[in-house]
Amino acid sequence: MGRWEPNAKGRLREAALDLYVERGFEQTTVAEIAARAGLTARTFFRHFPDKREVLFAGSTDLERHMVDALVGAPEAASPMTAVGVALDAAAAALGGNRDFARRRHLVITANGELQERELIKMTRLSAALAGGLGRRGVAEADARLAAEAGIAVLRVAFERWVTGPEERDLAEVMRESVDRLRSLTR
Amino acid sequence: MGRWEPNAKGRLREAALDLYVERGFEQTTVAEIAARAGLTARTFFRHFPDKREVLFAGSTDLERHMVDALVGAPEAASPMTAVGVALDAAAAALGGNRDFARRRHLVITANGELQERELIKMTRLSAALAGGLGRRGVAEADARLAAEAGIAVLRVAFERWVTGPEERDLAEVMRESVDRLRSLTR
Repeated sequence: MGRWEPNAKGRLREAALDLYVERGFEQTTVAEIAARAGLTARTFFRHFPDKREVLFAGSTDLERHMVDALVGAPEAASPMTAVGVALDAAAAALGGNRDFARRRHLVITANGELQERELIKMTRLSAALAGGLGRRGVAEADARLAAEAGIAVLRVAFERWVTGPEERDLAEVMRESVDRLRSLTR
Repeated sequence: MGRWEPNAKGRLREAALDLYVERGFEQTTVAEIAARAGLTARTFFRHFPDKREVLFAGSTDLERHMVDALVGAPEAASPMTAVGVALDAAAAALGGNRDFARRRHLVITANGELQERELIKMTRLSAALAGGLGRRGVAEADARLAAEAGIAVLRVAFERWVTGPEERDLAEVMRESVDRLRSLTR
Protein backbone atom coordinates (compact mmCIF):
# COMPACT_ATOMS: atom_id res chain seq x y z
CA MET A 1 0.00 0.00 0.00
CA GLY A 2 3.05 2.16 0.54
CA ARG A 3 3.20 3.79 -2.86
CA TRP A 4 -0.50 4.75 -2.66
CA GLU A 5 -0.22 6.48 0.71
CA PRO A 6 0.14 9.99 -0.72
CA ASN A 7 -3.31 9.60 -2.28
CA ALA A 8 -4.96 7.80 0.61
CA LYS A 9 -6.77 10.89 1.82
CA GLY A 10 -8.17 11.70 -1.61
CA ARG A 11 -9.23 8.09 -2.19
CA LEU A 12 -10.96 7.96 1.19
CA ARG A 13 -12.76 11.18 0.42
CA GLU A 14 -13.97 9.92 -2.95
CA ALA A 15 -15.03 6.58 -1.50
CA ALA A 16 -16.89 8.29 1.35
CA LEU A 17 -18.75 10.65 -0.99
CA ASP A 18 -19.70 7.79 -3.32
CA LEU A 19 -21.17 5.86 -0.40
CA TYR A 20 -22.92 8.89 1.12
CA VAL A 21 -24.62 9.57 -2.21
CA GLU A 22 -25.48 5.89 -2.82
CA ARG A 23 -26.64 4.87 0.65
CA GLY A 24 -26.98 8.07 2.64
CA PHE A 25 -24.58 9.53 5.19
CA GLU A 26 -26.21 7.86 8.20
CA GLN A 27 -26.12 4.40 6.65
CA THR A 28 -22.41 4.47 5.81
CA THR A 29 -19.73 3.19 8.18
CA VAL A 30 -16.03 4.04 8.34
CA ALA A 31 -15.25 0.35 7.68
CA GLU A 32 -17.22 0.52 4.43
CA ILE A 33 -15.49 3.72 3.35
CA ALA A 34 -12.08 2.21 3.99
CA ALA A 35 -13.01 -1.00 2.17
CA ARG A 36 -14.29 0.94 -0.85
CA ALA A 37 -11.01 2.86 -0.95
CA GLY A 38 -9.00 -0.36 -0.61
CA LEU A 39 -7.60 0.84 2.70
CA THR A 40 -8.02 0.04 6.39
CA ALA A 41 -10.13 1.81 9.00
CA ARG A 42 -6.84 2.55 10.75
CA THR A 43 -5.69 4.51 7.71
CA PHE A 44 -9.02 6.32 7.64
CA PHE A 45 -8.51 7.52 11.20
CA ARG A 46 -5.02 8.77 10.36
CA HIS A 47 -6.67 11.26 8.00
CA PHE A 48 -10.09 12.00 9.50
CA PRO A 49 -11.38 11.96 13.10
CA ASP A 50 -14.78 10.63 11.96
CA LYS A 51 -16.95 10.15 8.89
CA ARG A 52 -18.50 13.59 9.21
CA GLU A 53 -15.17 15.37 8.99
CA VAL A 54 -14.58 13.91 5.53
CA LEU A 55 -17.10 16.52 4.42
CA PHE A 56 -15.67 19.41 6.44
CA ALA A 57 -11.93 18.75 6.42
CA GLY A 58 -11.40 21.54 3.89
CA SER A 59 -13.00 24.29 5.95
CA THR A 60 -9.91 25.19 7.99
CA ASP A 61 -7.92 25.67 4.77
CA LEU A 62 -10.77 27.66 3.26
CA GLU A 63 -10.83 29.99 6.24
CA ARG A 64 -7.08 30.46 6.12
CA HIS A 65 -7.07 31.16 2.37
CA MET A 66 -9.88 33.68 2.70
CA VAL A 67 -8.51 35.51 5.74
CA ASP A 68 -4.99 35.63 4.25
CA ALA A 69 -6.37 37.08 1.02
CA LEU A 70 -8.51 39.61 2.87
CA VAL A 71 -5.71 40.77 5.15
CA GLY A 72 -3.31 40.92 2.18
CA ALA A 73 -5.63 43.01 -0.01
CA PRO A 74 -4.23 46.42 -1.04
CA GLU A 75 -4.23 48.86 1.87
CA ALA A 76 -6.50 51.27 0.03
CA ALA A 77 -9.14 48.60 -0.67
CA SER A 78 -12.56 49.24 0.87
CA PRO A 79 -13.95 46.62 3.29
CA MET A 80 -16.20 45.14 0.58
CA THR A 81 -13.35 45.10 -1.94
CA ALA A 82 -11.22 43.21 0.58
CA VAL A 83 -14.12 40.78 1.08
CA GLY A 84 -14.25 40.41 -2.71
CA VAL A 85 -10.57 39.41 -2.69
CA ALA A 86 -11.41 36.81 -0.03
CA LEU A 87 -14.25 35.52 -2.22
CA ASP A 88 -11.84 35.15 -5.15
CA ALA A 89 -9.63 33.08 -2.85
CA ALA A 90 -12.65 30.98 -1.90
CA ALA A 91 -13.45 30.43 -5.57
CA ALA A 92 -9.87 29.33 -6.19
CA ALA A 93 -10.03 26.93 -3.23
CA LEU A 94 -13.49 25.50 -3.92
CA GLY A 95 -13.97 25.92 -7.63
CA GLY A 96 -11.58 23.25 -8.89
CA ASN A 97 -13.80 20.22 -8.54
CA ARG A 98 -17.42 20.91 -9.31
CA ASP A 99 -18.40 17.26 -9.31
CA PHE A 100 -17.05 16.78 -5.81
CA ALA A 101 -18.73 20.01 -4.65
CA ARG A 102 -22.02 18.96 -6.24
CA ARG A 103 -22.06 15.56 -4.55
CA ARG A 104 -21.01 17.04 -1.22
CA HIS A 105 -23.84 19.54 -1.50
CA LEU A 106 -26.35 16.74 -2.19
CA VAL A 107 -25.22 14.83 0.88
CA ILE A 108 -25.32 17.86 3.17
CA THR A 109 -28.73 19.12 2.07
CA ALA A 110 -30.16 15.64 2.69
CA ASN A 111 -29.17 15.64 6.36
CA GLY A 112 -30.26 18.13 9.03
CA GLU A 113 -27.29 17.55 11.29
CA LEU A 114 -24.83 18.13 8.44
CA GLN A 115 -26.69 21.28 7.43
CA GLU A 116 -26.31 22.58 10.99
CA ARG A 117 -22.63 21.74 10.92
CA GLU A 118 -22.22 23.64 7.63
CA LEU A 119 -24.10 26.58 9.10
CA ILE A 120 -21.78 26.70 12.10
CA LYS A 121 -18.73 26.56 9.83
CA MET A 122 -20.11 29.46 7.80
CA THR A 123 -20.71 31.48 10.97
CA ARG A 124 -17.13 30.85 12.08
CA LEU A 125 -15.93 31.86 8.65
CA SER A 126 -17.93 35.07 8.91
CA ALA A 127 -16.41 35.81 12.33
CA ALA A 128 -12.92 35.12 10.95
CA LEU A 129 -13.50 37.52 8.04
CA ALA A 130 -14.83 40.17 10.42
CA GLY A 131 -11.72 39.66 12.55
CA GLY A 132 -9.54 40.11 9.46
CA LEU A 133 -11.37 43.32 8.58
CA GLY A 134 -10.81 44.48 12.16
CA ARG A 135 -7.07 44.01 11.62
CA ARG A 136 -7.45 46.28 8.59
CA GLY A 137 -8.83 48.95 10.88
CA VAL A 138 -12.51 48.52 9.95
CA ALA A 139 -14.91 49.37 12.80
CA GLU A 140 -16.59 46.35 14.35
CA ALA A 141 -20.17 46.84 13.15
CA ASP A 142 -19.00 47.55 9.59
CA ALA A 143 -16.65 44.57 9.72
CA ARG A 144 -19.46 42.26 10.78
CA LEU A 145 -21.85 43.60 8.15
CA ALA A 146 -19.29 43.31 5.36
CA ALA A 147 -18.29 39.81 6.49
CA GLU A 148 -21.91 38.63 6.70
CA ALA A 149 -22.61 40.12 3.28
CA GLY A 150 -19.58 38.25 1.94
CA ILE A 151 -20.78 34.97 3.43
CA ALA A 152 -24.24 35.58 1.97
CA VAL A 153 -22.63 35.97 -1.45
CA LEU A 154 -20.46 32.89 -0.92
CA ARG A 155 -23.44 30.72 0.01
CA VAL A 156 -25.76 31.92 -2.72
CA ALA A 157 -23.09 31.86 -5.43
CA PHE A 158 -21.77 28.46 -4.36
CA GLU A 159 -25.24 26.96 -4.44
CA ARG A 160 -25.97 28.47 -7.85
CA TRP A 161 -22.69 27.14 -9.18
CA VAL A 162 -23.19 23.69 -7.74
CA THR A 163 -26.85 23.21 -8.63
CA GLY A 164 -26.90 25.14 -11.90
CA PRO A 165 -26.99 23.32 -15.20
CA GLU A 166 -24.15 25.17 -16.89
CA GLU A 167 -20.49 24.60 -16.23
CA ARG A 168 -19.47 28.11 -15.24
CA ASP A 169 -16.51 29.36 -13.34
CA LEU A 170 -17.22 29.71 -9.59
CA ALA A 171 -15.22 32.95 -9.49
CA GLU A 172 -17.47 34.37 -12.19
CA VAL A 173 -20.69 33.38 -10.38
CA MET A 174 -19.23 34.85 -7.19
CA ARG A 175 -18.40 38.20 -8.80
CA GLU A 176 -21.81 38.31 -10.43
CA SER A 177 -23.41 37.78 -7.01
CA VAL A 178 -21.35 40.60 -5.50
CA ASP A 179 -22.64 42.84 -8.29
CA ARG A 180 -26.21 41.67 -7.66
CA LEU A 181 -25.91 42.44 -3.95
CA ARG A 182 -24.51 45.84 -4.82
CA SER A 183 -27.39 46.65 -7.13
CA LEU A 184 -29.93 45.26 -4.63
CA THR A 185 -28.70 47.53 -1.82
CA ARG A 186 -28.32 50.58 -4.05
CA MET B 1 -54.12 30.54 40.62
CA GLY B 2 -56.97 31.18 38.21
CA ARG B 3 -56.79 34.97 38.05
CA TRP B 4 -53.06 34.91 37.38
CA GLU B 5 -53.33 32.52 34.46
CA PRO B 6 -53.32 35.19 31.74
CA ASN B 7 -49.86 36.26 32.91
CA ALA B 8 -48.52 32.80 33.62
CA LYS B 9 -46.51 32.67 30.40
CA GLY B 10 -44.88 36.04 31.03
CA ARG B 11 -44.08 35.16 34.63
CA LEU B 12 -42.55 31.85 33.60
CA ARG B 13 -40.45 33.60 31.01
CA GLU B 14 -39.17 36.17 33.49
CA ALA B 15 -38.48 33.52 36.13
CA ALA B 16 -36.63 31.37 33.61
CA LEU B 17 -34.47 34.24 32.39
CA ASP B 18 -33.64 35.26 35.96
CA LEU B 19 -32.49 31.75 36.75
CA TYR B 20 -30.58 31.29 33.47
CA VAL B 21 -28.65 34.49 34.19
CA GLU B 22 -28.07 33.65 37.87
CA ARG B 23 -27.19 29.96 37.60
CA GLY B 24 -26.69 29.28 33.92
CA PHE B 25 -29.07 27.64 31.47
CA GLU B 26 -27.73 24.11 32.00
CA GLN B 27 -28.05 24.27 35.76
CA THR B 28 -31.69 25.38 35.81
CA THR B 29 -34.59 22.92 35.95
CA VAL B 30 -38.19 23.37 34.89
CA ALA B 31 -39.26 22.70 38.50
CA GLU B 32 -37.11 25.62 39.66
CA ILE B 33 -38.51 27.93 36.99
CA ALA B 34 -42.07 27.04 37.95
CA ALA B 35 -41.33 27.49 41.66
CA ARG B 36 -39.72 30.89 41.06
CA ALA B 37 -42.82 31.96 39.12
CA GLY B 38 -45.11 30.61 41.86
CA LEU B 39 -46.56 28.08 39.43
CA THR B 40 -46.39 24.34 38.83
CA ALA B 41 -44.28 22.41 36.33
CA ARG B 42 -47.59 21.31 34.81
CA THR B 43 -48.42 24.94 34.05
CA PHE B 44 -44.94 25.41 32.61
CA PHE B 45 -45.54 22.60 30.14
CA ARG B 46 -48.85 24.10 29.10
CA HIS B 47 -46.89 27.07 27.77
CA PHE B 48 -43.52 25.69 26.72
CA PRO B 49 -42.41 22.24 25.49
CA ASP B 50 -39.08 22.53 27.34
CA LYS B 51 -36.82 25.03 29.07
CA ARG B 52 -34.99 25.87 25.85
CA GLU B 53 -38.14 27.00 24.09
CA VAL B 54 -38.67 29.71 26.71
CA LEU B 55 -35.89 31.51 24.85
CA PHE B 56 -37.18 30.81 21.34
CA ALA B 57 -40.96 30.89 21.74
CA GLY B 58 -41.11 34.31 20.08
CA SER B 59 -39.40 33.29 16.86
CA THR B 60 -42.50 31.98 15.09
CA ASP B 61 -44.27 35.28 15.73
CA LEU B 62 -41.20 37.20 14.62
CA GLU B 63 -41.11 35.29 11.35
CA ARG B 64 -44.81 35.88 10.75
CA HIS B 65 -44.54 39.60 11.49
CA MET B 66 -41.55 39.98 9.20
CA VAL B 67 -42.93 37.95 6.30
CA ASP B 68 -46.35 39.67 6.52
CA ALA B 69 -44.67 43.08 6.47
CA LEU B 70 -42.45 42.11 3.57
CA VAL B 71 -45.25 40.65 1.47
CA GLY B 72 -47.47 43.65 2.31
CA ALA B 73 -44.88 46.27 1.32
CA PRO B 74 -45.93 48.56 -1.55
CA GLU B 75 -45.88 46.76 -4.88
CA ALA B 76 -43.33 49.18 -6.31
CA ALA B 77 -40.89 48.64 -3.42
CA SER B 78 -37.52 47.17 -4.40
CA PRO B 79 -36.48 43.85 -2.79
CA MET B 80 -34.21 45.65 -0.30
CA THR B 81 -36.91 48.19 0.53
CA ALA B 82 -39.33 45.34 1.24
CA VAL B 83 -36.66 43.75 3.45
CA GLY B 84 -36.36 47.11 5.21
CA VAL B 85 -40.09 47.04 5.93
CA ALA B 86 -39.64 43.56 7.40
CA LEU B 87 -36.79 44.87 9.56
CA ASP B 88 -39.04 47.64 10.85
CA ALA B 89 -41.55 44.95 11.80
CA ALA B 90 -38.77 43.04 13.56
CA ALA B 91 -37.81 46.17 15.48
CA ALA B 92 -41.44 46.65 16.54
CA ALA B 93 -41.65 43.01 17.67
CA LEU B 94 -38.27 42.84 19.45
CA GLY B 95 -37.56 46.41 20.46
CA GLY B 96 -40.10 46.78 23.26
CA ASN B 97 -38.16 45.15 26.07
CA ARG B 98 -34.45 45.82 25.92
CA ASP B 99 -33.79 44.39 29.36
CA PHE B 100 -35.36 41.08 28.40
CA ALA B 101 -33.50 41.07 25.10
CA ARG B 102 -30.23 41.90 26.85
CA ARG B 103 -30.55 39.07 29.37
CA ARG B 104 -31.67 36.61 26.69
CA HIS B 105 -28.63 37.56 24.64
CA LEU B 106 -26.33 36.97 27.63
CA VAL B 107 -27.78 33.51 28.21
CA ILE B 108 -27.54 32.50 24.56
CA THR B 109 -23.99 33.72 23.99
CA ALA B 110 -22.88 31.74 27.07
CA ASN B 111 -24.06 28.42 25.63
CA GLY B 112 -22.90 26.78 22.41
CA GLU B 113 -26.02 24.70 21.94
CA LEU B 114 -28.28 27.76 22.31
CA GLN B 115 -26.12 29.69 19.87
CA GLU B 116 -26.58 26.91 17.33
CA ARG B 117 -30.30 26.95 17.91
CA GLU B 118 -30.38 30.73 17.36
CA LEU B 119 -28.35 30.29 14.20
CA ILE B 120 -30.81 27.74 12.84
CA LYS B 121 -33.74 30.02 13.64
CA MET B 122 -32.01 32.86 11.78
CA THR B 123 -31.43 30.63 8.78
CA ARG B 124 -35.10 29.67 8.73
CA LEU B 125 -36.01 33.31 9.01
CA SER B 126 -33.78 34.09 6.05
CA ALA B 127 -35.42 31.31 4.01
CA ALA B 128 -38.87 32.61 4.97
CA LEU B 129 -37.93 36.14 3.85
CA ALA B 130 -36.52 34.79 0.60
CA GLY B 131 -39.78 32.89 0.10
CA GLY B 132 -41.74 36.11 0.71
CA LEU B 133 -39.61 37.94 -1.84
CA GLY B 134 -40.26 35.09 -4.27
CA ARG B 135 -43.98 35.74 -3.85
CA ARG B 136 -43.27 39.34 -4.80
CA GLY B 137 -41.80 38.07 -8.06
CA VAL B 138 -38.13 38.49 -7.12
CA ALA B 139 -35.82 35.97 -8.82
CA GLU B 140 -34.49 33.28 -6.49
CA ALA B 141 -30.82 34.29 -6.30
CA ASP B 142 -31.73 37.94 -5.71
CA ALA B 143 -34.32 36.93 -3.12
CA ARG B 144 -31.77 34.87 -1.22
CA LEU B 145 -29.12 37.60 -1.35
CA ALA B 146 -31.54 40.29 -0.18
CA ALA B 147 -32.90 38.04 2.58
CA GLU B 148 -29.41 37.12 3.79
CA ALA B 149 -28.40 40.78 3.73
CA GLY B 150 -31.49 41.58 5.79
CA ILE B 151 -30.65 38.89 8.34
CA ALA B 152 -27.07 40.20 8.53
CA VAL B 153 -28.46 43.65 9.35
CA LEU B 154 -30.89 42.20 11.88
CA ARG B 155 -28.17 40.30 13.71
CA VAL B 156 -25.59 43.07 13.74
CA ALA B 157 -28.12 45.78 14.67
CA PHE B 158 -29.76 43.66 17.33
CA GLU B 159 -26.43 42.89 18.95
CA ARG B 160 -25.39 46.53 18.87
CA TRP B 161 -28.69 47.56 20.41
CA VAL B 162 -28.57 44.92 23.09
CA THR B 163 -24.90 45.27 24.09
CA GLY B 164 -24.53 49.01 23.49
CA PRO B 165 -24.42 51.41 26.42
CA GLU B 166 -26.97 53.87 25.10
CA GLU B 167 -30.71 53.36 25.22
CA ARG B 168 -31.49 53.81 21.54
CA ASP B 169 -34.44 52.73 19.52
CA LEU B 170 -33.91 49.34 17.85
CA ALA B 171 -35.64 50.58 14.70
CA GLU B 172 -33.14 53.43 14.51
CA VAL B 173 -30.11 51.13 14.94
CA MET B 174 -31.62 48.83 12.32
CA ARG B 175 -32.08 51.59 9.75
CA GLU B 176 -28.59 52.89 10.45
CA SER B 177 -27.24 49.39 9.76
CA VAL B 178 -29.13 49.17 6.46
CA ASP B 179 -27.51 52.49 5.49
CA ARG B 180 -24.08 51.19 6.55
CA LEU B 181 -24.53 48.07 4.44
CA ARG B 182 -25.58 50.22 1.52
CA SER B 183 -22.52 52.43 1.79
CA LEU B 184 -20.26 49.38 2.31
CA THR B 185 -21.45 47.71 -0.89
CA ARG B 186 -21.42 50.91 -2.93
